[in-house]
Amino acid sequence: MSCELCTQTGGELLWQGERCRVVYVEERGYPGYCRVVWQAHVKEMTDLADDERLHLMEVVFAVEAVLREQLDPEKINLASLGNLVPHIHWHVIPRHTDDPHFPQPIWATAQRAAARTREHPDTAALASAIAASLD
Amino acid sequence: MSCELCTQTGGELLWQGERCRVVYVEERGYPGYCRVVWQAHVKEMTDLADDERLHLMEVVFAVEAVLREQLDPEKINLASLGNLVPHIHWHVIPRHTDDPHFPQPIWATAQRAAARTREHPDTAALASAIAASLD
Repeated sequence: MSCELCTQTGGELLWQGERCRVVYVEERGYPGYCRVVWQAHVKEMTDLADDERLHLMEVVFAVEAVLREQLDPEKINLASLGNLVPHIHWHVIPRHTDDPHFPQPIWATAQRAAARTREHPDTAALASAIAASLD
Repeated sequence: MSCELCTQTGGELLWQGERCRVVYVEERGYPGYCRVVWQAHVKEMTDLADDERLHLMEVVFAVEAVLREQLDPEKINLASLGNLVPHIHWHVIPRHTDDPHFPQPIWATAQRAAARTREHPDTAALASAIAASLD
């Protein structure tokens, strides 16, 4: 079996522990988009042990808190889908009213072009804040 | 402020506690689609206290476990978006390879018509299993 989240980091590595990692997803129109990836190849959240699930969600919410503090988005979107890559990963997506799909999910049809005023944040600052929260 | 999740149940009520409720979403092509709705009007997961967030996720994962056991989906999709209705609610969506959007998220462009063979499950059985897990 070849799984891209088993063989690749999946983005710029911001933080990692033994059980999961946080990566930055450089997606046009979505500054601050991160994913939290479980290190082992596990398909569903309810395949994890209770303490593993708790730990993973703590990391997801730590990333949410850092993104809210640093980017002040209109809304945070959280999702664990995995239909294409059935290896647990959480999307943590800061949304702004002028982003390409707002108020629709980012997987829907785009409503407008990406706002030119929003640039990707300093990933070193994100990494540092996530580490301060988790380490 | 008028919020539809403050004024309406949001679907057929399957279970409720003081802090959150589980409702059934009767969406064509998506048997088993449930939402877990926080009772109070709160916008983001990181606006909740730690124990509230933990409780809500326990309910989400209890629903995931029941849906997996009763419907044997190819994948579970979990999402908390709230761009249109900024009142915390989790989508818990059993996915099948022949559902209208698989392997895309349900918010993307449909890939095919809904499979005729999949009917909505007995919501009383879902409610009973969720209650057995949570009460």
